[in-house]
Amino acid sequence: MTEKAPLYSGKAKSVYRSETDHEYLIEFRDDITAFDGGKKDELQGKGSINAKVSAFIFRLLERNGIDTHFLKMEDNGLMRVKELKMLPLEIIVRNVAAGSVVRNYPFTEGKPFHPPIIVIDYKDDSLHDPMLNDELIIALDIITSEELTLIKKIAHHVNSVLKSHLEKCNLTLVDFKLEFGWCYDKLTVGDEISMDSMRIWEEGTRKSLDKDVYRFEKGDVMTTYHIVAQRIITDE
Amino acid sequence: MTEKAPLYSGKAKSVYRSETDHEYLIEFRDDITAFDGGKKDELQGKGSINAKVSAFIFRLLERNGIDTHFLKMEDNGLMRVKELKMLPLEIIVRNVAAGSVVRNYPFTEGKPFHPPIIVIDYKDDSLHDPMLNDELIIALDIITSEELTLIKKIAHHVNSVLKSHLEKCNLTLVDFKLEFGWCYDKLTVGDEISMDSMRIWEEGTRKSLDKDVYRFEKGDVMTTYHIVAQRIITDE
Repeated sequence: MTEKAPLYSGKAKSVYRSETDHEYLIEFRDDITAFDGGKKDELQGKGSINAKVSAFIFRLLERNGIDTHFLKMEDNGLMRVKELKMLPLEIIVRNVAAGSVVRNYPFTEGKPFHPPIIVIDYKDDSLHDPMLNDELIIALDIITSEELTLIKKIAHHVNSVLKSHLEKCNLTLVDFKLEFGWCYDKLTVGDEISMDSMRIWEEGTRKSLDKDVYRFEKGDVMTTYHIVAQRIITDE
Repeated sequence: MTEKAPLYSGKAKSVYRSETDHEYLIEFRDDITAFDGGKKDELQGKGSINAKVSAFIFRLLERNGIDTHFLKMEDNGLMRVKELKMLPLEIIVRNVAAGSVVRNYPFTEGKPFHPPIIVIDYKDDSLHDPMLNDELIIALDIITSEELTLIKKIAHHVNSVLKSHLEKCNLTLVDFKLEFGWCYDKLTVGDEISMDSMRIWEEGTRKSLDKDVYRFEKGDVMTTYHIVAQRIITDE
């Protein structure tokens, strides 16, 4: 994608310096992983399609007054973003019980959460991203109690915008993951919002239209991702 | 201990009906377990000594205005308690980082928490007592948000009373577990508070004086329990 070595490489994205200070370029790679890295593959075109969906969603959030790191998509498919000082947190917003919350607690799959609930994990591969509670987050000195309240408020706002949009596309937003960072003194949505980080069901059924197709081999991943992207990316 | 079959038998205690309505008798058994039941033994005299320490601590809490299920010790060593409708929660109060919080998060063992932190687990052996957060507790319909706030307030009060008492005995209260139940409409401390449910260090060192001696084979368990009980049970 680019000639220089990435500044940072995660499981599915690489970050490069740009020619401009405080701006970076993100490469959405074709690598896909699941089960804490236990399952790994490369799916041609996956990175590009997730980049497009993420870009669409970041624009949607920005139009709704939510700060994101998104600046623009470059012609070479890289996403230009603002520099963020990332928090080691994964903010998971759940509208409907599915996945780990059903495996770990006595919730029936498909049970709607009114109001939606937020679960926050500590992002650390070596510790296997353990779940946090509010007091642990404060004790770990990651953010203050007031900042945590603000993050939850923004996460609920993102959920409300995203859920409404997906409903218009006849899709159910089951849950999704957000990552936040500091852009100077502003808490800002970073990372990606894509089929790798959202759990989406066909409205009225529980047909998976997201990374669960990869995790549990429910069909052709790329076919699913293409169909979902077409439905999500509407005229702005 | 008694001729009738227990109404309920847990890993280390059995509960019997008494001749009085809404009063039960708890037998503190000599069984000791650790690691989610992976390690099990029977240590003669363990039950009796934990019953005595629990009784002492419940009396101490009652004198400080905290409601507990404790009524009296019977001559046969059984603890007479009020009937509680137990909540499936384990409330862990931590003054100092040790145990699972050090294994699961980047806290250094021995780091003091100011203020003390509370971690709440869902009590369910088949789910391996997973950790909860406030929103999951509410979504599971276990208690309301206001009741959760009250439980945390009582847990901090218990901590403050217990920590002060142990300090007078030159013991550090590292962390401990509480269980609550409803006595009619009153949230009441139930279960036990003993060397099986508290983590206690010799003041100024990190010498274990609790179930960690059993878990990690740090010495003779019964010798430790006897010494600690003698120190904790002071003239009332």
